[in-house]
Amino acid sequence: MGNYRLDVAYKGTGFHGYATQPNVRTVQDVLEAAIELVIGPIKTEVAGRTDKGVHATGQVVSFRADVEVDCARLQRSLNARLGREISVLALAPAPADFHARFSATGRAYRYLVLNRNAPDPFLAETSWHFTTPLDLDAMNAACEVLVGMHDFASFCRAAPGRSTERSLRTIEWSQLPGGVKELYIAASSFCHQMVRSIVAVSVDVGRGYIEVGDMAEILAAQDRGTTSGAAPARGLTLVEVEYE
Amino acid sequence: MGNYRLDVAYKGTGFHGYATQPNVRTVQDVLEAAIELVIGPIKTEVAGRTDKGVHATGQVVSFRADVEVDCARLQRSLNARLGREISVLALAPAPADFHARFSATGRAYRYLVLNRNAPDPFLAETSWHFTTPLDLDAMNAACEVLVGMHDFASFCRAAPGRSTERSLRTIEWSQLPGGVKELYIAASSFCHQMVRSIVAVSVDVGRGYIEVGDMAEILAAQDRGTTSGAAPARGLTLVEVEYE
Repeated sequence: MGNYRLDVAYKGTGFHGYATQPNVRTVQDVLEAAIELVIGPIKTEVAGRTDKGVHATGQVVSFRADVEVDCARLQRSLNARLGREISVLALAPAPADFHARFSATGRAYRYLVLNRNAPDPFLAETSWHFTTPLDLDAMNAACEVLVGMHDFASFCRAAPGRSTERSLRTIEWSQLPGGVKELYIAASSFCHQMVRSIVAVSVDVGRGYIEVGDMAEILAAQDRGTTSGAAPARGLTLVEVEYE
Repeated sequence: MGNYRLDVAYKGTGFHGYATQPNVRTVQDVLEAAIELVIGPIKTEVAGRTDKGVHATGQVVSFRADVEVDCARLQRSLNARLGREISVLALAPAPADFHARFSATGRAYRYLVLNRNAPDPFLAETSWHFTTPLDLDAMNAACEVLVGMHDFASFCRAAPGRSTERSLRTIEWSQLPGGVKELYIAASSFCHQMVRSIVAVSVDVGRGYIEVGDMAEILAAQDRGTTSGAAPARGLTLVEVEYE
């Protein structure tokens, strides 16, 4: 009887990622179970399958229902059940051909690094605490080379047979109050662990472990072995999904 | 051998308040135990004894030590032990007559009300989620009358024999992004539950349950029975302590 879009925020700390997996607690399982209690069995699609411990403030989910959905009522009902960890920010009818994943034309993530000696209890679950001082200008200079269409194989966890070409639109580190460095990064889509791998290399540049120019070499190598793995999941948040 | 000042932040969610009490976990107990592990038995003083569930980003603690304290080393050591819930933001020698409580000339608190339908998982532990729309202008108009020296008995939990006169310097509600209304309130000092009682009455004004002018009558009554109790502790944070 209709196609629906949910805009969702969640704190990833207590979940083994977004997507359903056997024997662990996932956002998808908890969200679908709550929807099904109200309107019966459904299958959801998601814009960005976030990893274990990754957060979202602007995740988008879609589903088709055989019944007519009272959107305001379903939203209230879901939030009453899910509120502490998952929030349904909006719930509305969508065009018949809307698909949270395939209709999306862009995704944006934020990554927070708490770059000072003292920890911050209010950022313990949403940032990477890294005490060595980081050179923000060097990090931004290194990241410039990533903008545009590239094969990001060096920054992607292997997925045999899948392309690692992506179009990166924006990448910028900025200084926030309280010793926080924030990365804002937007692309058509991201391959697995791409943002966290770029963060790890950026931080290596920022602390002087590698040079600004090394980012270009790592990108050109198209070899995952050239990077220093992935920054911790807890610093990462999916902030926006773009549709035409 | 010296007098020392600590600037401390903590998330109050997991504590039964700041001050030591029998059989429950308090910030003071956890903090003192960590200090004593490094330098031996001490007694601390605190600027503001926050209630169960109340947070701090700018709490101040002082203590005298019989030994010479390596401040940088003690701070690192404390943060390594306490980091997820309590952070020592600064630790430095203080003048001989410095006392965290008696030397303080002002305290400032912040209170967050998430005033929208959808909850926010990232504010679940640090705000009061109140869905009925609140009139910010009415709240500010009502609160104006509180500025200055008054007997705040109507807003204070009874403490027989103790004065409830306080000098309130600043009180202002403002609108933040994401549907958050923030109260900033500063005074020489506050009596018990004063900020949360003022929040509760402000919210009653904001939702139209009482009139703007009722705040003056409640203040004048000097009777705790005229208010609607206290807003939830989780929305309250001690943000600053002032010294001459």
